[in-house]
Amino acid sequence: MKNTPSILIVGAGAIGSFYGAILKRAGCSVSTVLRSDYEAVRARGVRINSPLGDLSYKPDHVYRDGDLPDEAPDFLILCVKVLPGVDRVALVAPWMGENTRLVLIENGLDIEKEMTAAYPDNPLISCLAFIAVSRTESGVVEHKAYGKLVMGRYPEGVDENCQALSRLFTEGGIKVDLTERVVGERWRKCLWNTPFNPLSVIANGADTRTILDTEGGEELIRAMMREVMDVAAAEGYPMADELIDQNIEGTRKMPAYKNSMALDYLNDRPIEREAVLGNVVALARHHGIPVPHLNTVLVTLKMRAALEGRG
Amino acid sequence: MKNTPSILIVGAGAIGSFYGAILKRAGCSVSTVLRSDYEAVRARGVRINSPLGDLSYKPDHVYRDGDLPDEAPDFLILCVKVLPGVDRVALVAPWMGENTRLVLIENGLDIEKEMTAAYPDNPLISCLAFIAVSRTESGVVEHKAYGKLVMGRYPEGVDENCQALSRLFTEGGIKVDLTERVVGERWRKCLWNTPFNPLSVIANGADTRTILDTEGGEELIRAMMREVMDVAAAEGYPMADELIDQNIEGTRKMPAYKNSMALDYLNDRPIEREAVLGNVVALARHHGIPVPHLNTVLVTLKMRAALEGRG
Repeated sequence: MKNTPSILIVGAGAIGSFYGAILKRAGCSVSTVLRSDYEAVRARGVRINSPLGDLSYKPDHVYRDGDLPDEAPDFLILCVKVLPGVDRVALVAPWMGENTRLVLIENGLDIEKEMTAAYPDNPLISCLAFIAVSRTESGVVEHKAYGKLVMGRYPEGVDENCQALSRLFTEGGIKVDLTERVVGERWRKCLWNTPFNPLSVIANGADTRTILDTEGGEELIRAMMREVMDVAAAEGYPMADELIDQNIEGTRKMPAYKNSMALDYLNDRPIEREAVLGNVVALARHHGIPVPHLNTVLVTLKMRAALEGRG
Repeated sequence: MKNTPSILIVGAGAIGSFYGAILKRAGCSVSTVLRSDYEAVRARGVRINSPLGDLSYKPDHVYRDGDLPDEAPDFLILCVKVLPGVDRVALVAPWMGENTRLVLIENGLDIEKEMTAAYPDNPLISCLAFIAVSRTESGVVEHKAYGKLVMGRYPEGVDENCQALSRLFTEGGIKVDLTERVVGERWRKCLWNTPFNPLSVIANGADTRTILDTEGGEELIRAMMREVMDVAAAEGYPMADELIDQNIEGTRKMPAYKNSMALDYLNDRPIEREAVLGNVVALARHHGIPVPHLNTVLVTLKMRAALEGRG
């Protein structure tokens, strides 16, 4: 790695743009591969309003699909949504060098395997973002709150690549929790996301309060959390029973909250159904674990997608 | 009963108007209690287009809530939807005489108890309608196909009141199947309705083909049918396992079909969620039978209703 580490963000939506800005603040060379926002960012850079200050920046290079970089980046950060129609392996292919570390800042479970299968010799750093951020127009991002990353080497451990990247993010101004078991952290996050996100979609955008206060709602959420826990345990990531109570109580203390999957659905954007729910049900099937509540929600979402031609 | 049996239809929507017409053809005196269609029917009678011919008729009396009949009818036929906000006991109260037979032509399960509790001395005849009929405008009904009634004394048996009413319907031109175990017939009908109707609502109006052809769809329907069967058996109405295969195969042979609950939902009309699904889940709970698939669908429908302010 050179003195000025080079970063390439593939899929620079709200999340990618934000973390790119943080690394830019840390002194990295930051380039982006864009699709719809290419013209706007090339002309005016990325504007980011944030409680951390004005994070606006001009990427060192602005690429689009089909371009080729002068040299491969030290870190390639992939921030696209995990969707059945998006070939993430092909997306990063032109930009991967021999020494490029592949970094995922993406949601969901079991989303690393296809990447390590395709790039077995590149270290894979898996990250979870805890952040409230949205793209308000082409090249403009509103950072509302939070920003912490949970980060680890996939499938486990913390290596010098994680250490180096973590230092850069910390210098840029955000908190990083390094973890030896990043997949376990994904399961912890999905303990909440896997029940709440799809339910809010099925209920046409119900917020957390509506979901918990509906007759039988909390009981249903608890049953779905229990099923997530059963699958996690079979995968080698057991969780303490109290986490269910803690998640419910924590959610009740928050103001009513409409999650991002519900917002995606209401705004006709694709939802990460498979990454957040379908992969859990597939793992359950693999282990022979019954997950009737999760499966009912998954299949009804598929029916609705079929009806709406969303595939 | 006089030579000309007197019939009062309470809730003369599409179904009530149609069966009223049949009894009129059989020579009965047929009166109706109406709400929204009162003015139209008083002025022009009921118009019914049907493959059976023109069934249009003028009711002998057209009442509205608050009116009082000259004398109590021989048969009071209740055809309102079974909804939490509709007090069916109160609706029929002004019209029930000592010798009035109470007749239900209504969907769902466990919908008779509150009526027999309120009118223990009046014979209760419970009917299921197999019919395709809809109200196209005020006082106008389109009868598309079918019309058979399944009829029995509640909770079981076939008495002389059933025989008499059955004869009248038959004279009017429709088929009646008398059954000793009408509640068992309700379970048989719900074996299909309880899975398909609510799922089509959750999937925003998916038809039978979409439901069965979605990945995991047929499996989910089968799991829900199995749960309905388990509850039916605990209630004393066991069904043969083959009925599941038969229902699936029969549905696959039909053209893609959007059921009435889906149409009600899409047209912002209330749905009979409790009569068709909620009561089954309540009985399951009473017997300690797990029904995770049915319960997931029930609770998500409630969440959506809460969000939409449909209660």
